[in-house]
Amino acid sequence: MKNFADDLVRKIRELDNPTVMGLDPRLEYIPEEIRSRWMKTVGPDAELAAAMAIYEFNTTLIDAVCDIVPAIKPQFAYYEMYGVTGIETLKKTVAYAKSKGMLVIGDAKRNDIGSTATAYAEGIIGKTALDDGSGKSMFNCDAVTVNGYLGIDGIKPFMDVCARDGKGIFTLVHTSNPSAVDFQDMELKDGRKVYELMADNVNEWGRELVGEEGFSSVGAVLGATVPEQAVAARKRMPNTLMLVPGYGAQGAGPDAAVASFTKEGEGAIVNASRSLMCAWKKREDLAPADYAKATRDEALDMKAKLNAALKDRKYV
Amino acid sequence: MKNFADDLVRKIRELDNPTVMGLDPRLEYIPEEIRSRWMKTVGPDAELAAAMAIYEFNTTLIDAVCDIVPAIKPQFAYYEMYGVTGIETLKKTVAYAKSKGMLVIGDAKRNDIGSTATAYAEGIIGKTALDDGSGKSMFNCDAVTVNGYLGIDGIKPFMDVCARDGKGIFTLVHTSNPSAVDFQDMELKDGRKVYELMADNVNEWGRELVGEEGFSSVGAVLGATVPEQAVAARKRMPNTLMLVPGYGAQGAGPDAAVASFTKEGEGAIVNASRSLMCAWKKREDLAPADYAKATRDEALDMKAKLNAALKDRKYV
Repeated sequence: MKNFADDLVRKIRELDNPTVMGLDPRLEYIPEEIRSRWMKTVGPDAELAAAMAIYEFNTTLIDAVCDIVPAIKPQFAYYEMYGVTGIETLKKTVAYAKSKGMLVIGDAKRNDIGSTATAYAEGIIGKTALDDGSGKSMFNCDAVTVNGYLGIDGIKPFMDVCARDGKGIFTLVHTSNPSAVDFQDMELKDGRKVYELMADNVNEWGRELVGEEGFSSVGAVLGATVPEQAVAARKRMPNTLMLVPGYGAQGAGPDAAVASFTKEGEGAIVNASRSLMCAWKKREDLAPADYAKATRDEALDMKAKLNAALKDRKYV
Repeated sequence: MKNFADDLVRKIRELDNPTVMGLDPRLEYIPEEIRSRWMKTVGPDAELAAAMAIYEFNTTLIDAVCDIVPAIKPQFAYYEMYGVTGIETLKKTVAYAKSKGMLVIGDAKRNDIGSTATAYAEGIIGKTALDDGSGKSMFNCDAVTVNGYLGIDGIKPFMDVCARDGKGIFTLVHTSNPSAVDFQDMELKDGRKVYELMADNVNEWGRELVGEEGFSSVGAVLGATVPEQAVAARKRMPNTLMLVPGYGAQGAGPDAAVASFTKEGEGAIVNASRSLMCAWKKREDLAPADYAKATRDEALDMKAKLNAALKDRKYV
């Protein structure tokens, strides 16, 4: 039976690379030449020009790394901000990455209850029922990030779609931003931190979606910037697939980024967005037009660093 | 200076009605006649037919209540599930409601950090910068719901847009679903519940966006299904604008729904989605084609019940 955790763990093994490329296409990440060419090409429609520039940039980056990086993580905010044409670009980007054999984690951090959670789940990872009797995949992501503040009512509808279609979710447990600790590290009366309560919930929720490789498709988000919490969280979630943001531009290095991996060095994937997408900005030896090469070089460097960190663990 | 809390409180006073109509257009909420007519009209494109049926239904409901109900609350999930055409329908629905003088609260429960939170905020309530130097309002909602699990890093970018453009946010404090208590009512070491910690954060964050009417544009979501918590939360957030889900189909009555209002009976707005949108299903005296009248009657009934409950408070 198709299971997202199996798909991701096997793809990571195949490419020997626990990296996911974040695709957060802010216009300023895209070389000026591409942006101005599209502004000329599509005339006065700056919204369409933005969408076309983003799609060209995204697909070129996907081509550049699809044989060495297992997955992409488009951040929905950066597509929604370009309105309807932005959403169209997101949809096309997902389809393109999948056509190149990559897995797609939709970073949408959705959260709601009951039939509304079902609507999000069907829209992003499942199928929407239409009046001609068909079920249509609207975004067709392989997994989606979710926020568990509403409890199991907000998670179960996603899990049902995951079970039916072999998809996955990653629930926020401990995020990578500085103020995460102000809420997520608050201590409960029973001695646990708020993020540990969430970790226990995720572990519990995930029991029924554990795949053949031993990991659950009910995953967790665990920031690379908080390696101590990542180690503690892994103990509470031995079978949970982890999505690790915060590497690179947000400040965490490879040692911290692999803190939530299992002892065997599996069960997690590290995201890099800016450091991969904007690699061309740091390369004085390359023209901006060679941004694909810059990203590929950076991805190979990141792969080597993560694998080295996994051989010699600093946080366990 | 434009301030969302002022706009909403004044509009509620003007219409003497603290109700927001949720627009969560599941296809099964829409009379069959409309759906089949659009299926015939647009031929084999069931996705477009769904979008057209939803837009006709939404705009008819808006026409039916715009002189008696201050605001709508479109739930983004039900538009996203219809993909790109669904998002187009959302955008058009927002514009239509505003053209009829209604305020629009985008129920998106967005959450992320830093520049990503800014992207959500600019997309939903602000303006997206484009390469022609323009700033374009993509969805142009007056307010948006957000999730505060990530702390101030995830809220401040929204607040900046609120301050600049006179917009608002509603942060989840205590939601209306049964499992909310499993997380939000957990007790902290300092004696507060998790939702009380969130309430204190919201109260603190909101200080700089208090308008002339004494309410902050940094609002809170407080479920009608938990009136005791609503009373406790109001004490912690004396100046916070409250958005109250859970009335009607979710089980809460008018007494519970007004628990989070101030002693003066202000500073909150109660949402009803299904009970208003599907009012036609309970009316044996009306044809489904008269769904607009059914919704208007239900809205007038809800207004009367809320105002009666405000005169004789059960929860204070």
